[in-house]
Amino acid sequence: MRQWSVDEVKRRLQSFTANQGFNHWLSPRLLEADEHGAVLEASVREDMTQHHGFVHGGCVSALADMAAAWAGALASGLDVVTSNFSLHFVAPAVGEAIVARARVLRAGRSVVTVDVQVFSRSPDKDEKLCAAGITSIAVVSRPAPT
Amino acid sequence: MRQWSVDEVKRRLQSFTANQGFNHWLSPRLLEADEHGAVLEASVREDMTQHHGFVHGGCVSALADMAAAWAGALASGLDVVTSNFSLHFVAPAVGEAIVARARVLRAGRSVVTVDVQVFSRSPDKDEKLCAAGITSIAVVSRPAPT
Amino acid sequence: MRQWSVDEVKRRLQSFTANQGFNHWLSPRLLEADEHGAVLEASVREDMTQHHGFVHGGCVSALADMAAAWAGALASGLDVVTSNFSLHFVAPAVGEAIVARARVLRAGRSVVTVDVQVFSRSPDKDEKLCAAGITSIAVVSRPAPT
Amino acid sequence: MRQWSVDEVKRRLQSFTANQGFNHWLSPRLLEADEHGAVLEASVREDMTQHHGFVHGGCVSALADMAAAWAGALASGLDVVTSNFSLHFVAPAVGEAIVARARVLRAGRSVVTVDVQVFSRSPDKDEKLCAAGITSIAVVSRPAPT
Repeated sequence: MRQWSVDEVKRRLQSFTANQGFNHWLSPRLLEADEHGAVLEASVREDMTQHHGFVHGGCVSALADMAAAWAGALASGLDVVTSNFSLHFVAPAVGEAIVARARVLRAGRSVVTVDVQVFSRSPDKDEKLCAAGITSIAVVSRPAPT
Repeated sequence: MRQWSVDEVKRRLQSFTANQGFNHWLSPRLLEADEHGAVLEASVREDMTQHHGFVHGGCVSALADMAAAWAGALASGLDVVTSNFSLHFVAPAVGEAIVARARVLRAGRSVVTVDVQVFSRSPDKDEKLCAAGITSIAVVSRPAPT
Repeated sequence: MRQWSVDEVKRRLQSFTANQGFNHWLSPRLLEADEHGAVLEASVREDMTQHHGFVHGGCVSALADMAAAWAGALASGLDVVTSNFSLHFVAPAVGEAIVARARVLRAGRSVVTVDVQVFSRSPDKDEKLCAAGITSIAVVSRPAPT
Repeated sequence: MRQWSVDEVKRRLQSFTANQGFNHWLSPRLLEADEHGAVLEASVREDMTQHHGFVHGGCVSALADMAAAWAGALASGLDVVTSNFSLHFVAPAVGEAIVARARVLRAGRSVVTVDVQVFSRSPDKDEKLCAAGITSIAVVSRPAPT
């Protein structure tokens, strides 16, 4: 039983980004969202980089995790937490933004399995795959504290 | 062939934390470090939390990734990048700090395999396991840009 | 609520090994088993090898999966299925047997998180780590078909 | 530098299936193979099942691993070994066959990253996703023993 519609989940994400701790710090923009997945984009800032000047793997994985979790929330209409994820880095993340594309593979009652890919976007809008993985998102049945 | 001693790797980590992008943002403290692994601790701040008030999984995984990568650098004496990691969340991360314990399972020439566990530490210094995983750290043979 | 005691879970495993499909094919021996984990050993046969003469990764991962699943059944006292696992291979598996050591990291109501390591054992009883990983075992609440 | 063409890799796989240890036991058929990936199919037998009558996760993961490794060999033209993999099970594998579809995400010099999905195929040829994951295949530069 859904607690929230797709539109309500989108509003929650936008509210978290505007007001809430780490979501505000990373400030992902919601490019696409429906019951099948979510696409989030974050602008690259200097405080997201590592010692080679690339986006730090920790930020790449954080955006991947967020996109997967939001895909789980959109698919279930319920509060979710990440149960586990695996992420493989295939190229340095450079450019002006990173974009995480999360796609629901299966929405079960207690777990949503989500495929996720992260791309880096150059100033001339070319996208290049920089990480790919798979995530289990646990559905939390009771309403979350607002 | 090592490029840096354990002490030199430790100095690099401390320099990154003082001066460098995302490492400075997360500001991990190096509690232990030798050729067999590394223990990093980060104080919990409001901008690291998610919507339940716990430390965001993205910050837990970022610290896990850093500890694993530093374990790879300590074991190899060379520059490294994370190739891939899997992380399972087992309890909410709450408290005043999170502590990542990374232990080298095998140091190969091109890959260091690292086991990592993240604990949350309460103000009365109790530690509780909040995440556990495994990581492949790729050894980059040539000197990194400083 | 447990359905089976530790001893009953052990008897189920031994019955599966004696009579049941792939469990019979792999024929693991139960070396240790309690609520904290399980140790399974399988003799190496020619039909378990790959093209270098090592034990095939598929057999290493199958034994790892079995040990993790049995650890989940022992910890929960209920029927279980593997939800997901990650396995990193660190050395070729050679010798007369492979031994999987699964240790429960956390036993939740719906998921048991299990750390697993696989060792190869030489004829003179030396053990060498050949793979390590982490597994989520899903607890199936209703009795399984016998 | 490739050691084998795509056709030579295909012949090697078919030779392994005909003659070699665990490959012969599982006996995958090669449905598709080029530099971008491989599709392998294995008939379901009673000795591949678990206690609910489904295909054992160990066999699902073994076929996933084989397909990913062959994708790595096809992409590189060199001998390969699996470095690590993560597999998420999303539905029971039932039916007359299981089909693993491995797709190369990136072919690096030392590692090929491969996305893999396993489907179960019913007698009326419907396919259903039963597992999905991601794999790092390590390229072994020197010729393998034949």
